[in-house]
Amino acid sequence: MDYQKRRRLLKEKLRRKNIDVLLVAQPENRRYLSGYQADDHSAQESSGVLLIPARGRSVLLTDFRYQVQAEQQSDLPVTLYRRGLLQLLQTLLGEYNTRTLGFESDYTLYSTSVKLAALAKRLHLDLAPCDNLVESMRIVKEEAELAVIRESVALNEQIFTNLFSSLSPEMSERQVARTIENMAFEAGCDGISFAPIVAAGPSGAMPHAHPSASPIGRERPITIDMGVRLNGYCSDMTRNFVLGDPDDTYLAVHRLVRKAQIAGIKAIREGVSVGQVDRAAREVIAKGGYGKYFGHALGHGVGLAVHEDPRLSGRSRRKLRRDMVVTVEPGIYLPGWGGVRLENMVIVREDHGEVINRDQTWLDI
Amino acid sequence: MDYQKRRRLLKEKLRRKNIDVLLVAQPENRRYLSGYQADDHSAQESSGVLLIPARGRSVLLTDFRYQVQAEQQSDLPVTLYRRGLLQLLQTLLGEYNTRTLGFESDYTLYSTSVKLAALAKRLHLDLAPCDNLVESMRIVKEEAELAVIRESVALNEQIFTNLFSSLSPEMSERQVARTIENMAFEAGCDGISFAPIVAAGPSGAMPHAHPSASPIGRERPITIDMGVRLNGYCSDMTRNFVLGDPDDTYLAVHRLVRKAQIAGIKAIREGVSVGQVDRAAREVIAKGGYGKYFGHALGHGVGLAVHEDPRLSGRSRRKLRRDMVVTVEPGIYLPGWGGVRLENMVIVREDHGEVINRDQTWLDI
Repeated sequence: MDYQKRRRLLKEKLRRKNIDVLLVAQPENRRYLSGYQADDHSAQESSGVLLIPARGRSVLLTDFRYQVQAEQQSDLPVTLYRRGLLQLLQTLLGEYNTRTLGFESDYTLYSTSVKLAALAKRLHLDLAPCDNLVESMRIVKEEAELAVIRESVALNEQIFTNLFSSLSPEMSERQVARTIENMAFEAGCDGISFAPIVAAGPSGAMPHAHPSASPIGRERPITIDMGVRLNGYCSDMTRNFVLGDPDDTYLAVHRLVRKAQIAGIKAIREGVSVGQVDRAAREVIAKGGYGKYFGHALGHGVGLAVHEDPRLSGRSRRKLRRDMVVTVEPGIYLPGWGGVRLENMVIVREDHGEVINRDQTWLDI
Repeated sequence: MDYQKRRRLLKEKLRRKNIDVLLVAQPENRRYLSGYQADDHSAQESSGVLLIPARGRSVLLTDFRYQVQAEQQSDLPVTLYRRGLLQLLQTLLGEYNTRTLGFESDYTLYSTSVKLAALAKRLHLDLAPCDNLVESMRIVKEEAELAVIRESVALNEQIFTNLFSSLSPEMSERQVARTIENMAFEAGCDGISFAPIVAAGPSGAMPHAHPSASPIGRERPITIDMGVRLNGYCSDMTRNFVLGDPDDTYLAVHRLVRKAQIAGIKAIREGVSVGQVDRAAREVIAKGGYGKYFGHALGHGVGLAVHEDPRLSGRSRRKLRRDMVVTVEPGIYLPGWGGVRLENMVIVREDHGEVINRDQTWLDI
């Protein structure tokens, strides 16, 4: 990936917005701009910050624990803070001739912003909350990124195919989830992109169910939502099926969800609003009589993060742009019975949505 | 756990601080106060908020995706937001006769605080950033919590013992890490408390190394840092050893780290500052000539979060209190050679530190 080019584009933005230095703390943004792969242990524990000046040399700031990783993975010079980031910033910002310091308002904690404000006051700087500066670059994928995403999807599908052929009704939801993780490991992925959802029977009525110790069983709906990460890029796919013979309810619900998914995919092309896409799928489910059982948005962007912009939400008028990558995942969730969700990943093209997935397991039944 | 009692204590605090309603968004704080176990998918994706009034009925606010889980796990009434948290708050806050609305400054994003400020303005409320209200309760463990932590530590040790006897030099760091995860799964834990660190040879010089595809090998230092989660409570332990015969460097470094660990543990008791404990261990390593190769704090609190307060940092004068639980984990990291870190968990008692760990693998060599 061409980190330098990305930073050049970001710096142009900073100059247009009169921001002299931007602090980039969000882990996927850091990786996108520098190759540094560390995640943050939690919202309160940063593994580093990029200091990107509108003019001059960028630098990766981190602490002792991440020094070697930072130096190995990033193309930026690494500077360590020994007594906290703020002390180091106080020293460094002078060197950049900074008047306006930007920070990511959508990742920085309120408590951190208060400390930054105090620092800015001491240094007579303006502090500028920024949002979406890097995310708006990440939202449209480069060709090299699309290639890796395709590989990530293909690998995820291969794992699902192997998994599917090894399923038996006696396996617990947790065992199935564990098998997915082990298969992802064997396949040489970086890891999974989120903890797999394996939900059988009534559990499937929870879109974000935790795998339980109960057997997945026969003759009831099973939802498997899984993804892997390959060279940083995520895949995300949901399949829904029954071991044994599906009953009429299952067939009807599944076919309606699939119809809605196809309608959503058909609505995708450059220039269409995300709300239109969401509604195209939602109307199918509403007309089928299950409108109130589809309570979440139709999909979300996927890239370095498994959930990123754009959200395919009915309330948004945001327009789709070429080479965005989104999921299309309508679902119907019936308390006491279970759920059906089908999820594919789609590239936004000029005049259509290109489905990345090839796996057809139980899609058209 | 007695969630109601904890909420009662928190409400007393709120009344003393003249906060009419506190929003609790931090996942471990939510769980501590209500039993609701969902994690947040990321800093930007909340799975719910507790609304805790100084007077009146508390409620758990979440969305459709988490409804069933919230209702099953929490002892609070659950209210769903369909058009976002802020819209629901606008309705609910009127019912509580709110003048001052508190939020967690150390978990809330700056961008969210801006939205809360706008809401507060519309409703003519004061907005109060709060920190440490729930964390300061969590920091001292109840007897029931200590019992679960002991079980979590014992289980983690059992897994390590099984792992240790199954190690061979040909296994890759990743395979060892994967084995730990599978053993934790088989043992019936909720899961691991963090991705295991398995670092052999030079990798061990990175305190936060990612397991690689390289074999762990013979005659070189191997660091394994692992923990499990049991009923929510974390364990965290590091062992360091050599497959085959350790050389003189290894023996010297390991013994020095162990000596530092013992000095740290001996310094622990109620009323001592965390800085004193850190220094007790650090001085041993400094006197041994390796001072600059121990670049992180001595330890951290453990509970519902694997990293929580108090940090055993040399710069802090915070006092230890009875029934805090902390790790003691000095390390020496030599670039090009590797590292040695030894970590046990300790309960702060009136007149001593009680080591929870029983595992002695390679501790005194």
